[in-house]
Amino acid sequence: MITTTQLKHIRSLQMKKFRDRHHQFVAEGEKIVQELIASDFADVVSVYATVDWIEEMEAHIPENVDKVTVSPKQLERISSLKSPNRVLAVVNKPQHTPPAAFAKDDLILILENLQDPGNLGTIIRTADWFGVRHIFCSPDTADLYNPKVIQASMGSFLRTRLYYTDILTFIKNNSSQIPVYAASTGGESLHNMSFTLPAAIVIGNESKGLSEKILKAAQKKISIPSGKESQQFEVAESLNAAMAAGILMACIRSKTAAT
Amino acid sequence: MITTTQLKHIRSLQMKKFRDRHHQFVAEGEKIVQELIASDFADVVSVYATVDWIEEMEAHIPENVDKVTVSPKQLERISSLKSPNRVLAVVNKPQHTPPAAFAKDDLILILENLQDPGNLGTIIRTADWFGVRHIFCSPDTADLYNPKVIQASMGSFLRTRLYYTDILTFIKNNSSQIPVYAASTGGESLHNMSFTLPAAIVIGNESKGLSEKILKAAQKKISIPSGKESQQFEVAESLNAAMAAGILMACIRSKTAAT
Repeated sequence: MITTTQLKHIRSLQMKKFRDRHHQFVAEGEKIVQELIASDFADVVSVYATVDWIEEMEAHIPENVDKVTVSPKQLERISSLKSPNRVLAVVNKPQHTPPAAFAKDDLILILENLQDPGNLGTIIRTADWFGVRHIFCSPDTADLYNPKVIQASMGSFLRTRLYYTDILTFIKNNSSQIPVYAASTGGESLHNMSFTLPAAIVIGNESKGLSEKILKAAQKKISIPSGKESQQFEVAESLNAAMAAGILMACIRSKTAAT
Repeated sequence: MITTTQLKHIRSLQMKKFRDRHHQFVAEGEKIVQELIASDFADVVSVYATVDWIEEMEAHIPENVDKVTVSPKQLERISSLKSPNRVLAVVNKPQHTPPAAFAKDDLILILENLQDPGNLGTIIRTADWFGVRHIFCSPDTADLYNPKVIQASMGSFLRTRLYYTDILTFIKNNSSQIPVYAASTGGESLHNMSFTLPAAIVIGNESKGLSEKILKAAQKKISIPSGKESQQFEVAESLNAAMAAGILMACIRSKTAAT
Protein backbone atom coordinates (compact mmCIF):
# COMPACT_ATOMS: atom_id res chain seq x y z
CA MET A 1 0.00 0.00 0.00
CA ILE A 2 1.23 3.45 -0.90
CA THR A 3 1.05 6.13 1.82
CA THR A 4 0.03 9.75 1.27
CA THR A 5 3.58 10.83 2.14
CA GLN A 6 5.04 8.53 -0.52
CA LEU A 7 2.48 9.74 -3.06
CA LYS A 8 3.35 13.38 -2.39
CA HIS A 9 7.08 12.66 -2.47
CA ILE A 10 6.89 10.90 -5.85
CA ARG A 11 4.78 13.64 -7.38
CA SER A 12 7.14 16.31 -6.06
CA LEU A 13 9.98 14.65 -8.01
CA GLN A 14 8.34 15.81 -11.24
CA MET A 15 9.82 19.21 -10.33
CA LYS A 16 13.54 19.96 -10.57
CA LYS A 17 13.52 21.84 -7.27
CA PHE A 18 12.53 18.71 -5.38
CA ARG A 19 14.76 16.39 -7.44
CA ASP A 20 17.67 18.64 -6.44
CA ARG A 21 16.58 18.79 -2.81
CA HIS A 22 16.12 15.04 -2.39
CA HIS A 23 18.84 13.93 -4.85
CA GLN A 24 16.31 11.58 -6.38
CA PHE A 25 14.41 11.14 -9.61
CA VAL A 26 11.66 8.94 -11.04
CA ALA A 27 11.92 6.48 -13.93
CA GLU A 28 8.84 4.81 -15.38
CA GLY A 29 7.83 1.84 -17.44
CA GLU A 30 8.80 -1.81 -17.45
CA LYS A 31 11.65 -1.60 -19.90
CA ILE A 32 13.43 1.38 -18.37
CA VAL A 33 13.04 0.13 -14.78
CA GLN A 34 14.35 -3.34 -15.69
CA GLU A 35 17.33 -1.80 -17.46
CA LEU A 36 17.94 0.51 -14.48
CA ILE A 37 17.96 -2.39 -12.02
CA ALA A 38 20.35 -4.35 -14.23
CA SER A 39 22.70 -1.39 -14.84
CA ASP A 40 25.28 0.23 -12.59
CA PHE A 41 23.98 3.69 -13.48
CA ALA A 42 22.35 4.52 -10.15
CA ASP A 43 20.76 2.99 -7.04
CA VAL A 44 17.07 2.20 -7.23
CA VAL A 45 15.52 3.07 -3.85
CA SER A 46 12.01 1.76 -4.35
CA VAL A 47 9.65 0.43 -6.97
CA TYR A 48 5.92 1.12 -7.04
CA ALA A 49 4.34 -1.55 -9.18
CA THR A 50 1.26 -3.62 -9.84
CA VAL A 51 1.02 -7.00 -8.06
CA ASP A 52 1.65 -8.95 -11.26
CA TRP A 53 4.82 -6.99 -12.11
CA ILE A 54 6.27 -7.56 -8.65
CA GLU A 55 5.45 -11.29 -8.83
CA GLU A 56 7.07 -11.62 -12.26
CA MET A 57 10.16 -9.63 -11.38
CA GLU A 58 10.65 -10.59 -7.70
CA ALA A 59 13.80 -12.64 -8.36
CA HIS A 60 15.45 -9.80 -10.29
CA ILE A 61 14.89 -7.02 -7.75
CA PRO A 62 17.74 -6.59 -5.24
CA GLU A 63 16.76 -7.11 -1.61
CA ASN A 64 17.55 -3.55 -0.55
CA VAL A 65 14.94 -2.15 -2.96
CA ASP A 66 11.59 -1.30 -1.35
CA LYS A 67 8.75 -2.97 -3.21
CA VAL A 68 5.40 -1.22 -2.92
CA THR A 69 2.28 -2.69 -4.49
CA VAL A 70 -0.01 -0.17 -6.14
CA SER A 71 -3.30 -0.50 -7.99
CA PRO A 72 -3.48 0.69 -11.61
CA LYS A 73 -5.51 3.63 -10.32
CA GLN A 74 -2.83 4.59 -7.77
CA LEU A 75 -0.16 4.24 -10.45
CA GLU A 76 -2.09 6.74 -12.56
CA ARG A 77 -2.03 9.20 -9.66
CA ILE A 78 1.75 9.08 -9.19
CA SER A 79 2.71 8.76 -12.86
CA SER A 80 3.71 11.55 -15.21
CA LEU A 81 2.77 9.42 -18.22
CA LYS A 82 -0.55 9.44 -20.03
CA SER A 83 -0.57 5.64 -19.98
CA PRO A 84 1.42 4.40 -16.95
CA ASN A 85 3.15 1.12 -17.60
CA ARG A 86 2.97 -1.18 -14.54
CA VAL A 87 5.97 0.18 -12.63
CA LEU A 88 7.62 3.37 -11.44
CA ALA A 89 10.98 3.55 -9.66
CA VAL A 90 12.39 6.16 -7.29
CA VAL A 91 16.13 6.38 -7.89
CA ASN A 92 19.04 8.12 -6.18
CA LYS A 93 20.72 10.59 -8.52
CA PRO A 94 24.21 9.31 -9.31
CA GLN A 95 27.34 11.43 -9.03
CA HIS A 96 29.34 10.94 -12.21
CA THR A 97 32.69 12.58 -12.67
CA PRO A 98 34.16 13.31 -16.09
CA PRO A 99 37.08 11.14 -17.21
CA ALA A 100 40.57 12.49 -16.49
CA ALA A 101 41.42 12.05 -20.16
CA PHE A 102 39.44 11.20 -23.26
CA ALA A 103 39.89 7.95 -25.18
CA LYS A 104 41.37 8.06 -28.66
CA ASP A 105 38.03 7.30 -30.31
CA ASP A 106 35.93 9.62 -28.11
CA LEU A 107 33.44 11.94 -29.72
CA ILE A 108 32.10 14.38 -27.11
CA LEU A 109 29.02 16.60 -27.11
CA ILE A 110 28.77 20.00 -25.46
CA LEU A 111 25.33 21.60 -25.10
CA GLU A 112 24.70 25.26 -24.35
CA ASN A 113 21.30 26.18 -22.91
CA LEU A 114 19.37 23.48 -24.74
CA GLN A 115 15.81 23.98 -23.49
CA ASP A 116 13.48 21.38 -24.89
CA PRO A 117 13.34 18.12 -22.86
CA GLY A 118 12.29 16.18 -25.97
CA ASN A 119 15.32 17.49 -27.85
CA LEU A 120 17.67 16.58 -25.00
CA GLY A 121 16.19 13.06 -24.81
CA THR A 122 16.55 12.61 -28.58
CA ILE A 123 20.15 13.85 -28.44
CA ILE A 124 20.97 11.33 -25.68
CA ARG A 125 19.37 8.48 -27.66
CA THR A 126 21.24 9.47 -30.83
CA ALA A 127 24.53 10.02 -28.95
CA ASP A 128 24.19 6.52 -27.54
CA TRP A 129 23.68 5.12 -31.06
CA PHE A 130 26.87 6.79 -32.25
CA GLY A 131 28.91 5.74 -29.22
CA VAL A 132 29.10 9.24 -27.71
CA ARG A 133 29.74 8.58 -24.01
CA HIS A 134 30.19 12.07 -22.52
CA ILE A 135 27.87 15.08 -22.82
CA PHE A 136 28.83 18.34 -21.10
CA CYS A 137 25.89 20.70 -20.49
CA SER A 138 25.74 24.32 -19.39
CA PRO A 139 23.85 24.56 -16.08
CA ASP A 140 20.87 26.20 -17.82
CA THR A 141 20.35 23.19 -20.11
CA ALA A 142 17.20 21.07 -19.54
CA ASP A 143 17.52 18.64 -16.63
CA LEU A 144 18.44 15.04 -17.49
CA TYR A 145 16.04 13.84 -14.79
CA ASN A 146 13.03 15.65 -16.21
CA PRO A 147 10.54 12.78 -16.87
CA LYS A 148 10.24 13.87 -20.52
CA VAL A 149 14.00 13.59 -21.04
CA ILE A 150 14.12 10.14 -19.43
CA GLN A 151 11.24 8.95 -21.64
CA ALA A 152 12.56 10.45 -24.88
CA SER A 153 16.02 8.98 -24.32
CA MET A 154 14.50 5.47 -24.47
CA GLY A 155 16.90 4.06 -21.86
CA SER A 156 19.97 5.60 -23.49
CA PHE A 157 20.53 7.86 -20.46
CA LEU A 158 21.85 4.71 -18.73
CA ARG A 159 24.82 4.44 -21.10
CA THR A 160 25.62 8.13 -21.63
CA ARG A 161 27.10 10.42 -18.98
CA LEU A 162 25.87 14.00 -18.64
CA TYR A 163 27.84 16.59 -16.66
CA TYR A 164 26.32 19.98 -15.82
CA THR A 165 29.27 22.32 -15.71
CA ASP A 166 30.76 25.64 -16.80
CA ILE A 167 31.20 24.71 -20.46
CA LEU A 168 33.21 27.85 -21.30
CA THR A 169 35.90 26.83 -18.81
CA PHE A 170 35.70 23.25 -20.05
CA ILE A 171 36.26 24.34 -23.65
CA LYS A 172 39.13 26.66 -22.69
CA ASN A 173 40.80 23.89 -20.64
CA ASN A 174 40.47 21.27 -23.37
CA SER A 175 40.69 23.04 -26.70
CA SER A 176 44.48 22.76 -26.88
CA GLN A 177 44.25 18.97 -26.69
CA ILE A 178 41.12 18.24 -28.72
CA PRO A 179 39.46 20.04 -31.62
CA VAL A 180 36.18 21.74 -30.67
CA TYR A 181 33.64 22.22 -33.46
CA ALA A 182 30.92 24.80 -32.79
CA ALA A 183 27.75 24.26 -34.85
CA SER A 184 26.94 27.55 -36.54
CA THR A 185 25.20 28.42 -39.80
CA GLY A 186 28.13 30.69 -40.63
CA GLY A 187 30.70 27.89 -40.23
CA GLU A 188 32.62 25.86 -42.77
CA SER A 189 30.69 23.05 -44.49
CA LEU A 190 31.21 19.80 -42.62
CA HIS A 191 31.49 18.04 -45.97
CA ASN A 192 34.73 19.89 -46.73
CA MET A 193 36.35 19.16 -43.37
CA SER A 194 38.40 16.26 -42.12
CA PHE A 195 38.33 15.15 -38.52
CA THR A 196 40.48 13.46 -35.91
CA LEU A 197 39.34 11.96 -32.62
CA PRO A 198 38.97 12.69 -29.80
CA ALA A 199 36.89 15.70 -30.78
CA ALA A 200 33.98 17.73 -29.41
CA ILE A 201 30.83 19.13 -31.04
CA VAL A 202 29.09 22.15 -29.48
CA ILE A 203 25.35 22.67 -30.00
CA GLY A 204 23.49 25.81 -28.94
CA ASN A 205 20.06 26.89 -27.80
CA GLU A 206 17.07 26.04 -30.05
CA SER A 207 16.30 29.63 -31.03
CA LYS A 208 19.41 31.65 -30.17
CA GLY A 209 22.11 29.18 -31.20
CA LEU A 210 25.52 29.46 -29.51
CA SER A 211 26.58 32.52 -27.52
CA GLU A 212 29.39 34.72 -28.78
CA LYS A 213 31.75 33.70 -26.00
CA ILE A 214 31.37 29.99 -26.76
CA LEU A 215 31.78 30.56 -30.51
CA LYS A 216 34.96 32.48 -29.76
CA ALA A 217 36.38 29.81 -27.44
CA ALA A 218 35.80 26.96 -29.91
CA GLN A 219 38.50 26.83 -32.57
CA LYS A 220 36.30 25.83 -35.48
CA LYS A 221 32.82 26.71 -36.70
CA ILE A 222 31.03 23.97 -38.56
CA SER A 223 27.84 24.10 -40.61
CA ILE A 224 25.48 21.61 -42.24
CA PRO A 225 24.97 22.76 -45.82
CA SER A 226 21.37 23.13 -46.92
CA GLY A 227 19.99 22.41 -50.37
CA LYS A 228 20.15 26.15 -50.97
CA GLU A 229 23.88 26.32 -51.55
CA SER A 230 23.88 23.90 -54.43
CA GLN A 231 20.39 24.42 -55.68
CA GLN A 232 19.32 27.98 -55.16
CA PHE A 233 15.86 27.47 -53.80
CA GLU A 234 14.35 28.82 -50.66
CA VAL A 235 14.71 26.44 -47.72
CA ALA A 236 13.92 26.12 -44.03
CA GLU A 237 15.63 28.73 -41.87
CA SER A 238 17.31 26.18 -39.66
CA LEU A 239 17.47 22.59 -38.56
CA ASN A 240 16.08 21.41 -35.23
CA ALA A 241 18.91 21.39 -32.64
CA ALA A 242 18.66 17.63 -32.01
CA MET A 243 18.66 16.96 -35.76
CA ALA A 244 21.77 19.12 -36.24
CA ALA A 245 23.54 17.26 -33.40
CA GLY A 246 22.58 13.89 -34.92
CA ILE A 247 23.76 14.78 -38.41
CA LEU A 248 27.10 16.08 -37.09
CA MET A 249 27.66 12.95 -34.99
CA ALA A 250 26.78 10.70 -37.96
CA CYS A 251 29.07 12.52 -40.39
CA ILE A 252 32.05 12.79 -38.01
CA ARG A 253 31.74 9.13 -37.00
CA SER A 254 31.59 8.23 -40.68
CA LYS A 255 34.65 10.30 -41.58
CA THR A 256 36.71 8.90 -38.71
CA ALA A 257 35.59 5.25 -38.91
CA ALA A 258 38.46 2.77 -38.77
CA THR A 259 38.70 1.13 -42.18
CA MET B 1 -17.19 38.99 -33.58
CA ILE B 2 -16.95 35.25 -33.84
CA THR B 3 -20.21 33.25 -33.97
CA THR B 4 -20.85 29.97 -32.17
CA THR B 5 -21.06 28.22 -35.55
CA GLN B 6 -17.63 29.52 -36.53
CA LEU B 7 -16.19 28.53 -33.16
CA LYS B 8 -17.52 24.99 -33.49
CA HIS B 9 -16.33 24.71 -37.09
CA ILE B 10 -12.78 25.79 -36.21
CA ARG B 11 -12.56 23.43 -33.28
CA SER B 12 -13.90 20.56 -35.37
CA LEU B 13 -10.95 21.04 -37.75
CA GLN B 14 -8.62 19.74 -35.04
CA MET B 15 -9.97 16.32 -36.07
CA LYS B 16 -8.99 14.61 -39.33
CA LYS B 17 -12.57 13.45 -39.94
CA PHE B 18 -13.79 17.05 -40.17
CA ARG B 19 -10.73 18.29 -42.06
CA ASP B 20 -11.50 15.63 -44.66
CA ARG B 21 -15.21 16.45 -44.73
CA HIS B 22 -14.76 20.22 -45.11
CA HIS B 23 -11.50 20.12 -47.12
CA GLN B 24 -10.11 22.70 -44.72
CA PHE B 25 -7.44 22.97 -42.04
CA VAL B 26 -6.26 25.48 -39.46
CA ALA B 27 -2.85 27.19 -39.30
CA GLU B 28 -1.86 29.27 -36.30
CA GLY B 29 0.59 31.94 -35.30
CA GLU B 30 1.77 35.18 -36.87
CA LYS B 31 4.72 33.79 -38.76
CA ILE B 32 2.96 30.81 -40.32
CA VAL B 33 -0.16 32.78 -41.27
CA GLN B 34 1.90 35.56 -42.87
CA GLU B 35 3.90 33.03 -44.84
CA LEU B 36 0.70 31.24 -45.88
CA ILE B 37 -0.86 34.45 -47.16
CA ALA B 38 2.29 35.29 -49.10
CA SER B 39 2.71 31.79 -50.56
CA ASP B 40 0.84 30.02 -53.34
CA PHE B 41 0.47 26.88 -51.22
CA ALA B 42 -3.26 27.16 -50.55
CA ASP B 43 -6.19 29.59 -50.31
CA VAL B 44 -6.74 31.23 -46.94
CA VAL B 45 -10.50 31.45 -46.36
CA SER B 46 -10.57 33.46 -43.16
CA VAL B 47 -8.39 34.83 -40.42
CA TYR B 48 -9.42 35.08 -36.76
CA ALA B 49 -7.14 37.62 -35.15
CA THR B 50 -6.77 40.22 -32.45
CA VAL B 51 -7.65 43.83 -33.39
CA ASP B 52 -4.00 44.93 -33.38
CA TRP B 53 -2.91 42.11 -35.72
CA ILE B 54 -5.64 42.93 -38.22
CA GLU B 55 -4.73 46.63 -38.09
CA GLU B 56 -1.05 45.91 -38.66
CA MET B 57 -1.61 43.40 -41.43
CA GLU B 58 -4.66 44.87 -43.19
CA ALA B 59 -2.72 45.91 -46.29
CA HIS B 60 -1.22 42.44 -46.73
CA ILE B 61 -4.44 40.44 -46.46
CA PRO B 62 -6.16 39.80 -49.80
CA GLU B 63 -9.68 41.21 -50.07
CA ASN B 64 -11.37 37.85 -50.48
CA VAL B 65 -10.14 36.70 -47.06
CA ASP B 66 -12.70 37.05 -44.25
CA LYS B 67 -11.27 39.00 -41.35
CA VAL B 68 -12.81 38.23 -37.97
CA THR B 69 -11.76 40.11 -34.85
CA VAL B 70 -11.43 37.97 -31.74
CA SER B 71 -10.45 38.76 -28.17
CA PRO B 72 -7.40 36.97 -26.70
CA LYS B 73 -9.87 34.93 -24.64
CA GLN B 74 -11.82 33.84 -27.72
CA LEU B 75 -8.57 32.99 -29.48
CA GLU B 76 -7.70 30.69 -26.60
CA ARG B 77 -11.01 28.91 -27.06
CA ILE B 78 -10.48 28.17 -30.75
CA SER B 79 -6.74 27.55 -30.59
CA SER B 80 -4.99 24.18 -30.28
CA LEU B 81 -1.87 25.88 -28.90
CA LYS B 82 -1.01 26.36 -25.25
CA SER B 83 -0.09 29.98 -25.97
CA PRO B 84 -2.11 31.22 -28.95
CA ASN B 85 -0.25 33.78 -31.01
CA ARG B 86 -2.59 36.59 -32.18
CA VAL B 87 -3.95 34.89 -35.31
CA LEU B 88 -5.47 31.69 -36.62
CA ALA B 89 -6.33 31.01 -40.26
CA VAL B 90 -8.85 28.64 -41.82
CA VAL B 91 -7.43 27.39 -45.08
CA ASN B 92 -8.73 25.33 -48.01
CA LYS B 93 -6.75 22.12 -48.40
CA PRO B 94 -4.81 22.31 -51.66
CA GLN B 95 -4.82 19.58 -54.29
CA HIS B 96 -1.23 18.92 -55.27
CA THR B 97 -0.38 16.43 -57.97
CA PRO B 98 3.00 14.70 -58.17
CA PRO B 99 5.32 15.79 -60.98
CA ALA B 100 5.16 13.78 -64.21
CA ALA B 101 8.92 13.26 -63.97
CA PHE B 102 11.54 13.97 -61.36
CA ALA B 103 14.28 16.57 -61.80
CA LYS B 104 17.89 15.42 -62.10
CA ASP B 105 18.76 16.69 -58.61
CA ASP B 106 15.60 15.44 -56.90
CA LEU B 107 15.89 13.55 -53.64
CA ILE B 108 12.49 12.08 -52.71
CA LEU B 109 11.16 10.74 -49.43
CA ILE B 110 8.68 7.90 -49.05
CA LEU B 111 7.08 7.34 -45.63
CA GLU B 112 5.29 4.16 -44.58
CA ASN B 113 2.86 4.43 -41.66
CA LEU B 114 4.78 7.13 -39.80
CA GLN B 115 2.57 7.78 -36.78
CA ASP B 116 3.98 10.58 -34.64
CA PRO B 117 2.88 14.09 -35.76
CA GLY B 118 6.02 15.62 -34.21
CA ASN B 119 8.20 13.24 -36.22
CA LEU B 120 6.35 14.06 -39.45
CA GLY B 121 6.71 17.79 -38.79
CA THR B 122 10.43 17.42 -38.08
CA ILE B 123 10.88 15.35 -41.25
CA ILE B 124 9.15 18.05 -43.32
CA ARG B 125 11.34 20.79 -41.76
CA THR B 126 14.50 18.77 -42.38
CA ALA B 127 13.42 17.78 -45.90
CA ASP B 128 12.91 21.46 -46.66
CA TRP B 129 16.43 22.24 -45.40
CA PHE B 130 17.92 19.61 -47.71
CA GLY B 131 15.87 20.67 -50.71
CA VAL B 132 13.62 17.61 -50.70
CA ARG B 133 10.49 18.77 -52.54
CA HIS B 134 8.33 15.63 -52.74
CA ILE B 135 7.25 13.31 -49.93
CA PHE B 136 5.06 10.29 -50.71
CA CYS B 137 3.15 8.93 -47.71
CA SER B 138 1.17 5.73 -47.22
CA PRO B 139 -2.46 6.63 -46.42
CA ASP B 140 -1.98 5.48 -42.79
CA THR B 141 0.79 8.05 -42.19
CA ALA B 142 0.00 10.94 -39.82
CA ASP B 143 -2.02 13.73 -41.45
CA LEU B 144 -0.08 16.73 -42.73
CA TYR B 145 -2.90 18.99 -41.53
CA ASN B 146 -2.80 17.78 -37.93
CA PRO B 147 -2.08 21.00 -35.97
CA LYS B 148 1.00 19.37 -34.37
CA VAL B 149 2.49 18.58 -37.78
CA ILE B 150 1.89 22.12 -39.04
CA GLN B 151 3.54 23.57 -35.89
CA ALA B 152 6.53 21.19 -35.85
CA SER B 153 7.23 21.81 -39.54
CA MET B 154 7.90 25.50 -38.74
CA GLY B 155 6.42 26.71 -42.02
CA SER B 156 8.31 24.17 -44.10
CA PHE B 157 5.05 22.48 -45.13
CA LEU B 158 4.57 25.45 -47.48
CA ARG B 159 7.59 24.49 -49.57
CA THR B 160 7.35 20.68 -49.49
CA ARG B 161 4.66 18.66 -51.23
CA LEU B 162 3.14 15.64 -49.52
CA TYR B 163 1.13 13.07 -51.46
CA TYR B 164 -0.90 10.40 -49.67
CA THR B 165 -0.88 7.46 -52.01
CA ASP B 166 -0.34 3.74 -52.46
CA ILE B 167 3.43 3.79 -51.93
CA LEU B 168 3.92 0.15 -52.97
CA THR B 169 2.52 0.91 -56.42
CA PHE B 170 4.54 4.12 -56.52
CA ILE B 171 7.76 2.24 -55.76
CA LYS B 172 6.98 -0.49 -58.31
CA ASN B 173 6.21 2.09 -60.99
CA ASN B 174 9.33 4.15 -60.36
CA SER B 175 12.05 1.76 -59.24
CA SER B 176 13.22 1.03 -62.76
CA GLN B 177 13.95 4.73 -63.32
CA ILE B 178 15.24 5.83 -59.92
CA PRO B 179 17.10 3.97 -57.15
CA VAL B 180 14.95 3.38 -54.07
CA TYR B 181 16.81 3.04 -50.75
CA ALA B 182 14.84 1.41 -47.93
CA ALA B 183 16.11 2.32 -44.45
CA SER B 184 16.65 -0.91 -42.56
CA THR B 185 19.04 -1.91 -39.79
CA GLY B 186 19.94 -4.97 -41.86
CA GLY B 187 20.95 -2.89 -44.89
CA GLU B 188 24.31 -1.92 -46.31
CA SER B 189 26.16 0.88 -44.52
CA LEU B 190 25.36 4.20 -46.16
CA HIS B 191 29.01 5.16 -45.77
CA ASN B 192 30.06 2.43 -48.22
CA MET B 193 27.50 3.36 -50.87
CA SER B 194 27.59 5.81 -53.72
CA PHE B 195 24.50 7.56 -54.95
CA THR B 196 23.03 9.11 -58.07
CA LEU B 197 20.07 11.46 -58.26
CA PRO B 198 17.16 11.43 -58.63
CA ALA B 199 16.78 8.90 -55.82
CA ALA B 200 14.25 7.98 -53.14
CA ILE B 201 14.64 7.12 -49.45
CA VAL B 202 11.97 5.00 -47.74
CA ILE B 203 11.39 5.35 -43.97
CA GLY B 204 9.12 3.06 -41.97
CA ASN B 205 6.95 3.14 -38.88
CA GLU B 206 8.53 4.26 -35.57
CA SER B 207 8.33 0.87 -33.90
CA LYS B 208 7.78 -1.65 -36.67
CA GLY B 209 10.04 -0.20 -39.36
CA LEU B 210 9.23 -1.02 -42.99
CA SER B 211 6.87 -3.79 -44.01
CA GLU B 212 8.20 -6.85 -45.85
CA LYS B 213 6.42 -5.94 -49.07
CA ILE B 214 7.99 -2.48 -49.19
CA LEU B 215 11.45 -3.82 -48.33
CA LYS B 216 11.06 -6.31 -51.17
CA ALA B 217 9.93 -3.71 -53.71
CA ALA B 218 12.82 -1.33 -52.95
CA GLN B 219 16.01 -2.41 -54.70
CA LYS B 220 18.44 -1.46 -51.95
CA LYS B 221 18.49 -1.64 -48.17
CA ILE B 222 20.48 1.06 -46.45
CA SER B 223 21.57 1.35 -42.82
CA ILE B 224 23.13 4.00 -40.60
CA PRO B 225 26.08 2.37 -38.82
CA SER B 226 26.11 2.73 -35.04
CA GLY B 227 29.17 3.13 -32.85
CA LYS B 228 28.81 -0.57 -32.07
CA GLU B 229 30.28 -1.80 -35.34
CA SER B 230 33.58 -0.05 -34.90
CA GLN B 231 33.73 0.12 -31.13
CA GLN B 232 32.10 -2.93 -29.63
CA PHE B 233 30.06 -1.27 -26.95
CA GLU B 234 26.39 -1.56 -26.27
CA VAL B 235 24.36 1.14 -27.95
CA ALA B 236 20.79 2.34 -28.39
CA GLU B 237 18.53 -0.15 -30.13
CA SER B 238 17.53 2.25 -32.84
CA LEU B 239 17.44 5.83 -34.02
CA ASN B 240 14.30 7.92 -33.96
CA ALA B 241 12.57 7.71 -37.38
CA ALA B 242 12.87 11.45 -38.06
CA MET B 243 16.55 11.38 -37.05
CA ALA B 244 17.22 8.45 -39.41
CA ALA B 245 15.48 10.30 -42.25
CA GLY B 246 17.52 13.45 -41.55
CA ILE B 247 20.87 11.64 -41.45
CA LEU B 248 20.12 9.81 -44.71
CA MET B 249 19.09 13.05 -46.45
CA ALA B 250 22.23 14.82 -45.17
CA CYS B 251 24.59 12.06 -46.24
CA ILE B 252 23.05 11.49 -49.67
CA ARG B 253 22.96 15.24 -50.41
CA SER B 254 26.60 15.43 -49.32
CA LYS B 255 27.68 12.52 -51.51
CA THR B 256 25.87 13.88 -54.58
CA ALA B 257 26.71 17.58 -54.17
CA ALA B 258 27.96 19.20 -57.38
CA THR B 259 31.62 20.04 -56.84
